[in-house]
Amino acid sequence: MAALCLYVHGMNVPGARSHGQLSISASSAPRDLLTDRPSRAGAWTAKVITLFPETFPGVLAASLTGKALTEGLWNLETVDLRQFGAGKHRSVDDTPSGGGAGMVLRADVMGNAIRHACRETASPLAYLSPRGRRLDQRMVQRFSEGPGLVLISGRFEGLDQRVIDRFCIEEVSLGDFVMTGGEIAAQALIDAAVRLLPGVVGNAASIEGESFSNGLLEHPQYTRPASWEGCDIPDVLTSGDHQAVAKWRQQEAERLTRERRPDLWQAYSDKDP
Amino acid sequence: MAALCLYVHGMNVPGARSHGQLSISASSAPRDLLTDRPSRAGAWTAKVITLFPETFPGVLAASLTGKALTEGLWNLETVDLRQFGAGKHRSVDDTPSGGGAGMVLRADVMGNAIRHACRETASPLAYLSPRGRRLDQRMVQRFSEGPGLVLISGRFEGLDQRVIDRFCIEEVSLGDFVMTGGEIAAQALIDAAVRLLPGVVGNAASIEGESFSNGLLEHPQYTRPASWEGCDIPDVLTSGDHQAVAKWRQQEAERLTRERRPDLWQAYSDKDP
Repeated sequence: MAALCLYVHGMNVPGARSHGQLSISASSAPRDLLTDRPSRAGAWTAKVITLFPETFPGVLAASLTGKALTEGLWNLETVDLRQFGAGKHRSVDDTPSGGGAGMVLRADVMGNAIRHACRETASPLAYLSPRGRRLDQRMVQRFSEGPGLVLISGRFEGLDQRVIDRFCIEEVSLGDFVMTGGEIAAQALIDAAVRLLPGVVGNAASIEGESFSNGLLEHPQYTRPASWEGCDIPDVLTSGDHQAVAKWRQQEAERLTRERRPDLWQAYSDKDP
Repeated sequence: MAALCLYVHGMNVPGARSHGQLSISASSAPRDLLTDRPSRAGAWTAKVITLFPETFPGVLAASLTGKALTEGLWNLETVDLRQFGAGKHRSVDDTPSGGGAGMVLRADVMGNAIRHACRETASPLAYLSPRGRRLDQRMVQRFSEGPGLVLISGRFEGLDQRVIDRFCIEEVSLGDFVMTGGEIAAQALIDAAVRLLPGVVGNAASIEGESFSNGLLEHPQYTRPASWEGCDIPDVLTSGDHQAVAKWRQQEAERLTRERRPDLWQAYSDKDP
């Protein structure tokens, strides 16, 4: 399904550099301090082709993904599409063939950026686009088990179809809605994949019980205080009866899935009658 | 469907401030410079309750959403959940009732943050959670037509169910995958809604032709150069025959939708036989 980066040949692009992200800061300033720190060999690596490299690491610099980034559990690199632009103005887009509104990212420009990003990696190549297959936990799992990802963040009306065809790029959609660009979608996919890497989420059991890991939505959660504004925690959860708790949680997960996601419920029932 | 912020009463929380975001920078530093700049009255406003306020505006500071933010076409405020934490350590979470891995966000802490965020607004309240209804373009449209959104970014194992019930919070999911927190999902939803606000995307026609606006995935796009590495743009697109172009695009949109998204194709066929 995923295209590997097979169309690799070296390119020297003035000013184009790959650099690992180390700082927890979301500021673009520390990036420049980090260019001489090499990627951690062997760690899962996300490379993002984008017109807005300053938007990375963004949210990924916070919390567990940020901690894991500084600890070298994964690497993040950006490839600035503008540096592959054509002519004096480093143009990256042009008007749609056949007419219409907006601008389309050029095949030649993106092709060169892809070849640059794909040097020395056999990672799958994914284009974030509302036309793609919808991201789900199985895809995330597959991506997290590989060496990493090369992600293309689109902007404008989209990407020239010839690049998608030539590189057999897998199109991945975050959902049936449209955003101004692929950067947020790239961060979502990276976050979801990184948290499955060993050592990123402290308690592996947290991952096992959660939504989609067993085909059901997660049961409701409660915590102290036991009484809040007249609402109490369901008795069973404070009963100390572990079997009763497990049964209640399973029933609640099934009820929620049935009510909210008939599609998931159908798949669950078919699998496990 | 959406809960309005009806449970409002004033709260004085030491150090809790709402402030409009003005800077294009993704750095947290400029935030402090901006606290005395008031929100633009009447503009669509996103308020985000989060443990990581420094991750905003994040990607939203770039490109069209960033430009629109500086121009006052929309407002962004963060509510730091930590400031509502309990005790000396401002604790926001506790272990799950009934046992299990991870931590759960406390009802009392989140309840106070929600009441703070909901002062002076009748915006819908949404919790970003993989258990929610999946975000689609219709929901985005609905959110963009209202006064704004109050968004709850979860972390850990989730949010105490009593808060969700008490405030009738709409649960919104980005898709069938799990992230470390709701911040990226919040940015995705805000991006999608903001781009539908008047004046944000320069060419309104860009929005009309895109994926999901007519129930189909978007047709392939091409742009110059006409020939790239042996691949040419389809002849019809350079024919100058506008009717033929329109027909080709419709056929391609239908073909792609049929191939990739049988669910969308079914809905489209049912609607428009």
